[in-house]
Amino acid sequence: MQLGMIGLGRMGSDMVRRLIGGGHECVVYDVQPAAIQKLLQQGVTGASSLEDMVARLAKPRAVWLMVPAAVVDSTLAGLVPLLESGDVLIDGGNSWYQDDIRRSAALAPRQIHYVDAGTSGGVAGLDRGYCLMIGGERDVVQHLAPIFATLAPGVDAAQPTPGRKKGNSTAEQGYLHCGPIGAGHFVKMVHNGIEYGVMAAYAEGLNILRHADAGKRARDADAETTPLRNPEHYQYELDLAEVTEVWRRGSVIGSWLLDLIAATLVNDAGLKNYTGRVSDSGEGRWTLSAAIDEGVPAPILSIALSERFSSRGAADFADRVLSAMRHDFGGHVEKTADQPDTQKG
Amino acid sequence: MQLGMIGLGRMGSDMVRRLIGGGHECVVYDVQPAAIQKLLQQGVTGASSLEDMVARLAKPRAVWLMVPAAVVDSTLAGLVPLLESGDVLIDGGNSWYQDDIRRSAALAPRQIHYVDAGTSGGVAGLDRGYCLMIGGERDVVQHLAPIFATLAPGVDAAQPTPGRKKGNSTAEQGYLHCGPIGAGHFVKMVHNGIEYGVMAAYAEGLNILRHADAGKRARDADAETTPLRNPEHYQYELDLAEVTEVWRRGSVIGSWLLDLIAATLVNDAGLKNYTGRVSDSGEGRWTLSAAIDEGVPAPILSIALSERFSSRGAADFADRVLSAMRHDFGGHVEKTADQPDTQKG
Amino acid sequence: MQLGMIGLGRMGSDMVRRLIGGGHECVVYDVQPAAIQKLLQQGVTGASSLEDMVARLAKPRAVWLMVPAAVVDSTLAGLVPLLESGDVLIDGGNSWYQDDIRRSAALAPRQIHYVDAGTSGGVAGLDRGYCLMIGGERDVVQHLAPIFATLAPGVDAAQPTPGRKKGNSTAEQGYLHCGPIGAGHFVKMVHNGIEYGVMAAYAEGLNILRHADAGKRARDADAETTPLRNPEHYQYELDLAEVTEVWRRGSVIGSWLLDLIAATLVNDAGLKNYTGRVSDSGEGRWTLSAAIDEGVPAPILSIALSERFSSRGAADFADRVLSAMRHDFGGHVEKTADQPDTQKG
Amino acid sequence: MQLGMIGLGRMGSDMVRRLIGGGHECVVYDVQPAAIQKLLQQGVTGASSLEDMVARLAKPRAVWLMVPAAVVDSTLAGLVPLLESGDVLIDGGNSWYQDDIRRSAALAPRQIHYVDAGTSGGVAGLDRGYCLMIGGERDVVQHLAPIFATLAPGVDAAQPTPGRKKGNSTAEQGYLHCGPIGAGHFVKMVHNGIEYGVMAAYAEGLNILRHADAGKRARDADAETTPLRNPEHYQYELDLAEVTEVWRRGSVIGSWLLDLIAATLVNDAGLKNYTGRVSDSGEGRWTLSAAIDEGVPAPILSIALSERFSSRGAADFADRVLSAMRHDFGGHVEKTADQPDTQKG
Repeated sequence: MQLGMIGLGRMGSDMVRRLIGGGHECVVYDVQPAAIQKLLQQGVTGASSLEDMVARLAKPRAVWLMVPAAVVDSTLAGLVPLLESGDVLIDGGNSWYQDDIRRSAALAPRQIHYVDAGTSGGVAGLDRGYCLMIGGERDVVQHLAPIFATLAPGVDAAQPTPGRKKGNSTAEQGYLHCGPIGAGHFVKMVHNGIEYGVMAAYAEGLNILRHADAGKRARDADAETTPLRNPEHYQYELDLAEVTEVWRRGSVIGSWLLDLIAATLVNDAGLKNYTGRVSDSGEGRWTLSAAIDEGVPAPILSIALSERFSSRGAADFADRVLSAMRHDFGGHVEKTADQPDTQKG
Repeated sequence: MQLGMIGLGRMGSDMVRRLIGGGHECVVYDVQPAAIQKLLQQGVTGASSLEDMVARLAKPRAVWLMVPAAVVDSTLAGLVPLLESGDVLIDGGNSWYQDDIRRSAALAPRQIHYVDAGTSGGVAGLDRGYCLMIGGERDVVQHLAPIFATLAPGVDAAQPTPGRKKGNSTAEQGYLHCGPIGAGHFVKMVHNGIEYGVMAAYAEGLNILRHADAGKRARDADAETTPLRNPEHYQYELDLAEVTEVWRRGSVIGSWLLDLIAATLVNDAGLKNYTGRVSDSGEGRWTLSAAIDEGVPAPILSIALSERFSSRGAADFADRVLSAMRHDFGGHVEKTADQPDTQKG
Repeated sequence: MQLGMIGLGRMGSDMVRRLIGGGHECVVYDVQPAAIQKLLQQGVTGASSLEDMVARLAKPRAVWLMVPAAVVDSTLAGLVPLLESGDVLIDGGNSWYQDDIRRSAALAPRQIHYVDAGTSGGVAGLDRGYCLMIGGERDVVQHLAPIFATLAPGVDAAQPTPGRKKGNSTAEQGYLHCGPIGAGHFVKMVHNGIEYGVMAAYAEGLNILRHADAGKRARDADAETTPLRNPEHYQYELDLAEVTEVWRRGSVIGSWLLDLIAATLVNDAGLKNYTGRVSDSGEGRWTLSAAIDEGVPAPILSIALSERFSSRGAADFADRVLSAMRHDFGGHVEKTADQPDTQKG
Repeated sequence: MQLGMIGLGRMGSDMVRRLIGGGHECVVYDVQPAAIQKLLQQGVTGASSLEDMVARLAKPRAVWLMVPAAVVDSTLAGLVPLLESGDVLIDGGNSWYQDDIRRSAALAPRQIHYVDAGTSGGVAGLDRGYCLMIGGERDVVQHLAPIFATLAPGVDAAQPTPGRKKGNSTAEQGYLHCGPIGAGHFVKMVHNGIEYGVMAAYAEGLNILRHADAGKRARDADAETTPLRNPEHYQYELDLAEVTEVWRRGSVIGSWLLDLIAATLVNDAGLKNYTGRVSDSGEGRWTLSAAIDEGVPAPILSIALSERFSSRGAADFADRVLSAMRHDFGGHVEKTADQPDTQKG
């Protein structure tokens, strides 16, 4: 079927490619003309403006937004006046589900339909397909099924789940109508919350493995340094590329994230290409906020988020408070970083 | 090759089956004769005692222990006197790596070799193969390679890792010589530590999804209950079996653990078959202990372990301390569990 | 000076008593006439309605609200139309500071001033005085100084802080103008966030002390139970009332909260009067939300809040997910609560 | 009474001063003669060697060790052969209670008594007195009561606890016989564990207050930076010296640690004198280890300890793992520290 796509960044343009490959017709637009140019040879129709895009789409139109969460509202401000009753807007980006609820309510009087499509898959999605978590009216979502089916990975992307009746649900194809407006982004949000926790678990474990040679490094023997009682227990120099590779087969912690880190460690065992400033793009914050509203404990996610903040230096003042207190009650003087007990990064 | 197997519980007997299927010869022993009987039709040789087993093995003998960590030392007390210089003992159970170091040192004067083989794979290992993390002397480990190769899942169990040179390492087959004595169980220990964190991340996320209907439940409106400001944002009744199924394809959090929970939720969406008392079998504790010795932060693992303790009621007194303090400074009276704000389990 | 007080619950009525004792004139109102009656003999003027109260106050009026956060807006709806330009509203309850900002903005066109006064002190405040954290316009706050000075504990409530110039600030008396509108409740909010963390630290430590006899209790010796390697190290039966009492003198962790728990433990060493369902009244949630917005790590507070949710059963489904996963990959069967390793509460 | 003191560092020499002030006779020794010299004018007897000290003490001798935990065993190696049946050794340092148990058992055949005296009070102890948590045989501890009573703060150091019978216990004077060997250091260990948690709670809260002006700082508007939705809610520039001062009177979180940080902030509001590398001297690690052995949740302490490790750079590799994963699945490129969203320290 025909789809308008607004936003041709990494994600948007790959999704267009996958749709074209699946036989769909795409009319595309981006504020940067170069992004449109790049796709023209794929067989898309480029639009010179939002007006032009809307004019080129058959009614009822289906327009997919794949823009940063921060510019969805401004994009809608330009687009919505051009749309008509019965048209469908799909937000496939990382919007907060509460914005979906607000936007949908604003569009309702004009009978413009709104669908939120949480999209996971990242840069691998062009090949692997995208996992789609969808919220909105049932019949509107069903109308878009051909689009979702092409973007999704398909049944063969995973082994059948034992006990499931086949063909019972589109979940097996990799897309799911989760519920009313916002349900798609809600599920995607929690997906990312889980992602933070899973990533942190691997990161922590690999860090422990990396320091398994702690007994080989000299330590200060002063009152500010806890002695390592049994240095003979920490004499291992582990090859993390090998360890992550072996875990990929048969272990309990096999996963796609493990596949990725195993590949990265092959050529950069010390991860020298990274400095360790870890960004967060909002979903983790929103998941935590939802957990708080629900009164549901989310300690793993909380810690994973706090660690990202700390990686950017945001714990510095708190750490200085601790040092100051230790000085005040115990006369403890801070050690400096170039002393021999300095941690191996 | 020939292998003696002591301990024919769930893991040990499945491993024997896999070894027999791979053309190896197994002499087996268990304190419970019935466990031996069950395997006889698989073509194994049953031993009536440790002496009998040792007598039936060609020198240099290879004996694999697959017994609970708590009985390894007592088993060794009976077995070791029967062994001779050049024989090899493999501990495939969940021993603490520091016990490996101690045991190996005790065996060294008698030139009995010791290999620690951390084994992951659980009840699925018979079919999927076992991920093996191995510590010990290089030539001894190499001598056992045929055994490891059969137990391991094999190259085809996962897609090749981009960037890796093929055939470079046994890690691609699913077994790895990680380093000297104890290195195998050290890596397995951290594997389980990661497992705790990953499991907790999924559990927490699914719990948040389950309570996405919080706005539909009545709340008390008293000073002890935080009001839910926007109940309209928590009106989702999500089908967790469907959500976990859709995540299996194309999402960032696809994993074997997700496959398992997706299958369980098909027939028990509310997990009514479980009460939520979560055991721990030691590796998480040891991983945390290693992190502490190394001076490496492990907050995710710490929290995951604490949650298990709490699930068994071990936080009760701490919670009562909190209630008492709240009463003392603020006059707050505890709410009882049968009030209408009671959490949905 | 003259003050109107709306809300004569525990906090409001004690504050009126303290104000009367300090020579102020109070006109009081509560939706429950009995609450007014109780105060009449203290020398207050009772008002029969909001209208009556407003009529009895000299201009510019000062009206203090001490009502639950959930009814501030409805109270204001009735009160504000009765007020005039120059009057001052003080919210001394536990409002969210963002509501202060909103309310103040709504009152500004009518030139009604708004002051937020975060109040700490609890049931002991009548005697000890109240710690007041205040936000609002500087001259308005100064106008109310006599009220604040009487409510606050006064200089002698603590030893002078070494290095401080005397008389430099009202902080020494126990009240502080923290900044513009909302600053008072912001500081009070974070105060409560810290309170959660401090309380949790004591609770956790006391719980560890309580279980110092773990080596005296039998444990199961099965694969689901981690053995206690050195039961001889956990043979202590500690008297927590004595321990908390000794900590009150000279230790690093002396505090008012410790004083309180020491007193409670005197007569209820096992805290049998409590069940351990710990409520939260919102400030912890808001503090965490502020930390998230600021991008500042708050793991201690996060965990303390999550623990309260868990104490009310909100982790149950997550725990069942963990049990289900353990069963699925490892064949682990849940232990039941009446087995001998059951935790001491 | 007469006491030998070995170890005249900060703590040991102040304790001698307090004992002399209380009328006791002290024979002192330190490996550094200068430390002995400094005390001579206080009226102590200096010993030129361990032999000399032992010779100068009347039988049964009482010798107090106040040396770093790491040198207790080597000091005992020289001292113990000089002692006789009936003599008493007191370890007042920060030893691990399990070492007490071991040492006491080694001394038992020679009928040399051992007492562990956990000591809190820090550099303020000379004036405030020391909180003493004591383990050992009842009659031996009672024999030393005059020493403990002088070192302890005394009854007047705190208000009486409501509900306690007066004179019931030495806890009111600030010292307590907690139980058999090791009980004193066990209680002191948990005291320090609580201390870590309490300190972290204050540090976290003050950090949130410090960043209450987050809305005033420019942020990047890219996909790697979560936008601050309501910068108008984060416009506060709070004076932390004033805030901590006001909390000292009447608030729920008043404590000695708060007194200390309030004093430090007077002259160094930004804590520029500290870099934020926070040491740990072992008790936190041991407390966590005890919690693990007991199967008792200790998330607050775990996090507080992990934060200290992180403050020393020990999370760096874990953070790089996170950045690498984000790059791998999402194409996210790390931001560098000199970009305008850089955190205020």
